[in-house]
Amino acid sequence: MFLALFISYFYYACPLNICSILAQKINKVHAITDYQAHFLAYLDQKNIQKEPRNLYEPIEYILQLGGKRLRPVLVLMATEVFDVPYTKALDAALAVEVFHNFSLIHDDIMDEAPLRRGKETVHKKWDINTGILSGDAMLINAYQLFENYDGSMYKSLTQLFTKTAIEVCEGQQYDVDFEERDDVTIEEYLKMIEYKTAVLVGAALQMGAIVANASTEDQHRIYDFGRLLGIAFQLQDDYLDAFGDPETFGKQVGGDIIENKKTFLYLKALEQGTPDERKQLEGLFSLEEVNAEEKVEMVKGLYESTQSKTATRAAIEKYTKLAFETLSSLQVSKEKKEMLQQFGEMLMNRSV
Amino acid sequence: MFLALFISYFYYACPLNICSILAQKINKVHAITDYQAHFLAYLDQKNIQKEPRNLYEPIEYILQLGGKRLRPVLVLMATEVFDVPYTKALDAALAVEVFHNFSLIHDDIMDEAPLRRGKETVHKKWDINTGILSGDAMLINAYQLFENYDGSMYKSLTQLFTKTAIEVCEGQQYDVDFEERDDVTIEEYLKMIEYKTAVLVGAALQMGAIVANASTEDQHRIYDFGRLLGIAFQLQDDYLDAFGDPETFGKQVGGDIIENKKTFLYLKALEQGTPDERKQLEGLFSLEEVNAEEKVEMVKGLYESTQSKTATRAAIEKYTKLAFETLSSLQVSKEKKEMLQQFGEMLMNRSV
Repeated sequence: MFLALFISYFYYACPLNICSILAQKINKVHAITDYQAHFLAYLDQKNIQKEPRNLYEPIEYILQLGGKRLRPVLVLMATEVFDVPYTKALDAALAVEVFHNFSLIHDDIMDEAPLRRGKETVHKKWDINTGILSGDAMLINAYQLFENYDGSMYKSLTQLFTKTAIEVCEGQQYDVDFEERDDVTIEEYLKMIEYKTAVLVGAALQMGAIVANASTEDQHRIYDFGRLLGIAFQLQDDYLDAFGDPETFGKQVGGDIIENKKTFLYLKALEQGTPDERKQLEGLFSLEEVNAEEKVEMVKGLYESTQSKTATRAAIEKYTKLAFETLSSLQVSKEKKEMLQQFGEMLMNRSV
Repeated sequence: MFLALFISYFYYACPLNICSILAQKINKVHAITDYQAHFLAYLDQKNIQKEPRNLYEPIEYILQLGGKRLRPVLVLMATEVFDVPYTKALDAALAVEVFHNFSLIHDDIMDEAPLRRGKETVHKKWDINTGILSGDAMLINAYQLFENYDGSMYKSLTQLFTKTAIEVCEGQQYDVDFEERDDVTIEEYLKMIEYKTAVLVGAALQMGAIVANASTEDQHRIYDFGRLLGIAFQLQDDYLDAFGDPETFGKQVGGDIIENKKTFLYLKALEQGTPDERKQLEGLFSLEEVNAEEKVEMVKGLYESTQSKTATRAAIEKYTKLAFETLSSLQVSKEKKEMLQQFGEMLMNRSV
């Protein structure tokens, strides 16, 4: 595995005169698998069976469903990037994961999704009312997890959390709205994916920086790194949905096309296509009864002929590059920047 | 109107040597109608039309539906009880009202309620998905409103808010659970109404006390006053649903009986009734097809013969008395205590 190759610890020299300052800090970085393991152990330890069971059982269920735990890992990693032990960030990491799972429960109700990570969704296993109420309790519980941080750190963390949470709701609403609209611009689409997906990646990293008492400048830089990487990741998700390898993508290739989803590929094809190509594409996206395989092939053909495929790859590269550029200005050691860079590369290569 | 008779301002003498300390404080109390008006003006002023409209329009809709605004009034009033101008508490008051309306939107979905304050509920006017997402945004927005308070006050307010919000969710879950259970105890029922209704009344008052920098002891006393008054109020709601005056109660008298709601009256009747009375009552509550008027009369008859009616009145009086007793130990002037007492009396006489 690529992950196993990732070097677990970097030690760096510590001049004697600043060793006392660093005494309480850490001078190593962990592998992503380490962070995942530490996070899962903490999640397990926090899992006390609370009453009423009908409220808390669905919460325990979704938190145990698995997933790559990328957001909490980012919180822990960012804390150590700024030389503070990840242990200080476990509650913030858990808050981010609890919030993410709250949004999954409520989104799954809205999308009428039967499955999540191959298992029944909460509203299917229980019912819609349970999904609503347990989701609400998770959102509140996320705030509760920040209470272990003192005064101004508590305020910084929860304020960032609140701003992000509102944006995630707004992003979800834009996504719903776009289904009914046929005049969505590329700019609006980018804002939607930024709010719905990317800001939480940025916020996870910034929370780690807050816990580590990083400077405001570095907090904003690491936030931007995450936000830009999140946009690149989501654009790549759009791209792979049409042009990914069915063996490794993990989802049904062509799923977005079958569901008439107005992705970046679709919007760019409309923008760049000839009037005839636009008409064909809109026609294919308005058909109800059509051979799915044939439709996917025709739409993919249009994504190629309109140069939308090329433009989407270019956009992915642009945002990835922008993300890595923000890293360079971060006031941390070369090793720490490399750790973030490697995480970004792994994410964009879908090895994590 | 009784409210109009409520004295608007009490002035009290201020010895010169402490006048400077009180310079920034207030030495008057307002009438409840004043607080309502101030709150409504603030709500109006805060009403900026945010995007996306499909997320924020339902929020503006429910916040403008009306209601007595008792919870925000309590926040403002409690602040002035501790000699700090109510203006400092407007954001906390709004947060409490926003949270209360969030819970109404989500509860109305769960109860499939078509109407709220005589108007369409959010999920009826829009749809369930809109109700879920707009509700979520309101819960987050409530936290945002506390951000105008500094460090430790922000933490005190949001921590109390979080604790209360979790209890409200748990109370709602107990209420749902009780529908399916036939072994609910009086103790469990009291805990349910405490969580679902009373803790938010207590929290509203304590928030005012926090904003006014009242002592921890006084914060807890005023919280308990609100909590006990909230329990008394909810028990009275149960009582009036069966024995209230149809002219003044505002809801359909007998509604709980028709819906087979296991209220305090019902549970107490089961506890105190003879085996035969219990059998009759359980029989009436398990019938699907029955003449509603006849059923209401028969159940009310059982509430009287089992002495449940008397016991419920006694419980209302007990909690009201306990509430007023906690007032006596509050370290504020006699006038301020009287203001809270009068508010309590008006609430229990349903004049507000």
